[in-house]
This record gives sequence, structure tokens and C-alpha cells, in this order.
Amino acid sequence: MAKIQVFGHKSPDTDTIASAMAAADLLAQQGLDTEAVAQGKPNQETQYALDHFGLQTLPIIDKATTEEVVLVDHNEAAQSVDNLAEVTVYGIYDHHKFNFQNATPLYITAKPWGSVSTILYYEYLKAGLTIPAKIAGMLVSGLISDTLLLKSPTTTDVDRAALPELAKMAGIDDVDAYGLAMLKAGTDLSSKSDED
Amino acid sequence: MAKIQVFGHKSPDTDTIASAMAAADLLAQQGLDTEAVAQGKPNQETQYALDHFGLQTLPIIDKATTEEVVLVDHNEAAQSVDNLAEVTVYGIYDHHKFNFQNATPLYITAKPWGSVSTILYYEYLKAGLTIPAKIAGMLVSGLISDTLLLKSPTTTDVDRAALPELAKMAGIDDVDAYGLAMLKAGTDLSSKSDED
Ligand SMILES: [Mn+2]
Ligand SMILES: [Mn+2]
Ligand SMILES: [Mn+2]
Ligand SMILES: [Mn+2]
Repeated sequence: MAKIQVFGHKSPDTDTIASAMAAADLLAQQGLDTEAVAQGKPNQETQYALDHFGLQTLPIIDKATTEEVVLVDHNEAAQSVDNLAEVTVYGIYDHHKFNFQNATPLYITAKPWGSVSTILYYEYLKAGLTIPAKIAGMLVSGLISDTLLLKSPTTTDVDRAALPELAKMAGIDDVDAYGLAMLKAGTDLSSKSDED
Repeated sequence: MAKIQVFGHKSPDTDTIASAMAAADLLAQQGLDTEAVAQGKPNQETQYALDHFGLQTLPIIDKATTEEVVLVDHNEAAQSVDNLAEVTVYGIYDHHKFNFQNATPLYITAKPWGSVSTILYYEYLKAGLTIPAKIAGMLVSGLISDTLLLKSPTTTDVDRAALPELAKMAGIDDVDAYGLAMLKAGTDLSSKSDED
């Protein structure tokens, strides 16, 4: 089976990194050969989350090097790898407006929810699969980042329900304290991307 | 709560009619106020299925008359209602290549499977909801129509697994006999659309 690269948008934010990791793991648990990668270095907020859960940064790509790819947290070509038109999009997990065209039927799971991290939490659940604790930690982080600790107007009831469940799986006792520390880490060096 | 019209592509085929009915029912069971409609009269094959299960034809529209809509079995504006750009797409269920853009986050469930009828069968299942027998009958019909009784190259293992389950729910004893009779009804007057 050929490998499938899984990646989020350019100028990666925490939701993009978390959902690339989670989608690659979810699809691997379902039998695909996946590799989570990123279109750039983690920002300070994401680096805080990676350090907290003892995770390495993702390999950085500027072009996809597999024939099939999975897009997370974006669907527009402008936010994707430069050679998107030359590869086949196997699937998309996203929560943005759409501007996507391709030549072949594909998997798309899109929901108007606060984060792709939230969407992936429910995808694991519906598939009856276990979320590894470190990946749950990254999904907590992606959810908190995109919804500003459930305070953003994009926050939905689904996000509010997912956060405590994910925090439990990640072994986070005080999710507010963790979230504030993570968001603060992202503002320290004003290196936070202005994309969600 | 405002009503949401649910419809498939122009020149409706059996999968389009079946999935409009099923998506409208599934979303209604989840609390939305939906109305299944169609962009044209049923073809002879679809009419055979409707008659077999004692169902009325869907109301025919040429423009959406609700502010929000759900698209089934298509996603391209050219195959949709003329005023698509003036309404909000709440969600899409589809199995075709994509060419879609919009201005707001939305629900999309797309899979590269043989029919949208198959996709909706699994959506009911994952949601833990019951498929009414007549709607199961239409989903059997949509699946058989798009896959030519599981013989088309677009047929997947998922379609093969769904067909006997749906037939059971629909109370169809001999699904091959039903399928052949339905497909034959569609060829009698060469009125079958050449879209899948
Ligand atoms: Mn996001
Ligand atoms: Mn993002
Ligand atoms: Mn179809
Ligand atoms: Mn069709």
C-alpha cells in the first residue's frame, strides 16, 4: 500500500498540526499507511503543546511527495502544497468554507464546528477507536486554540461537549489552566499565525 | 426553525430521488425541519421504485424556496438549482468529484462509493437511527440503479455489504429479481438519464 501524506494549511496553527497527527493516526488504525507532515515549523503555541505531551515536531514539506494526500483544516489550493494539482486528494477533514475542485470521488468530512480537532474526536468515537493519550492532548490543544478556550463565536455545543472528554483522555486535570498557559505561550513572541 | 429543502441533481435519477428522501428523513429525525424535493419528474425506473414502495413523487422545484438547502448526489452549481448562489448550503451528501465553493462552513459527507444511497445507509447506522421500510426500499433502488446491481466498476465492498441489509429492512425477499425488474422498467421507454 502506498503511503499517504496528511497535512494542514500553510503557516500551521495548533489545530492544523493536531488534526494532521490525529487524522494520520485514525486512518492508520483503519489500515492505511499514513504520514503526518506540516507545511512549516510549529508556532510557539503549538510548540508548547508538543513539549507538554512529549511529541516531536512533524516533518516539514513544501510539496507532497506521495501520490495520494489527505488535507486537514483547509481545502483551498492556495493554502495547500504547491503541487496539489499533481496529486490525488484521498480525503479532507475541514471546518472552513469550501473552494475545492478535483477530478475523482473522494472522502470529505466537513462540519461547521469550532475546530477540526473536534471533528476528529467524533470520528474516532464513531469508528469505535481509541485516541492515544498524546494525540488526545494535541486535540485538546487544537480545540482550545481555535475556540480560544470555548470563548470564540465559532464555538458550538459540540466543541463544549468534546473538550472535557478529550481532556480526560489526555490526562489533563485542569483544562482551563492548561489552555491559558498554552494560549499565553503563543502570544509571548507574537509568533502566532493570524489564520485559525 | 426554518425549513430546509433537500434535493439532488437536474434530470433526477433513482439515487438522487432516494437520497433526497433519505437525507430529509435522517435530518428530520435529528431535529431539522426538512422537505425533500426534486429538480424534475422521476424517470421510468424511479417511478417503478416509487410505485413498488407506495410512495408519492417529490414536489418539483426549479429554484430553492428556502434560505438553507441540502444537496444530495451532486455538488456542482451547474447541476443544481438556478438560484444556488443566493441560498446557503447547509450540507452535502455526495459521491462525485468535487467542484464546489461557498462562503460559510457547512456539513459535507462525501465518500467514493457506488451510490449516495449507500452513504446514507451508513449515516443512519452511525447515528443509531431506524430507516423507515419505504425509505430503505428507495435506498435499495438507488444503490442498484447507480451500481447496476453491483456490476458497475464503481461498486465497492461497502455497497456490496449494504445491499442485503437494506433489502432486509425494505422487506425485499429477492433483491436480484427486484433490481432486474426496476432496471428493466428504466429501459422500456429509453427515458433513463445518462447521468449516474
Ligand atoms: Mn481550524
Ligand atoms: Mn487552522
Ligand atoms: Mn449517485
Ligand atoms: Mn445521480
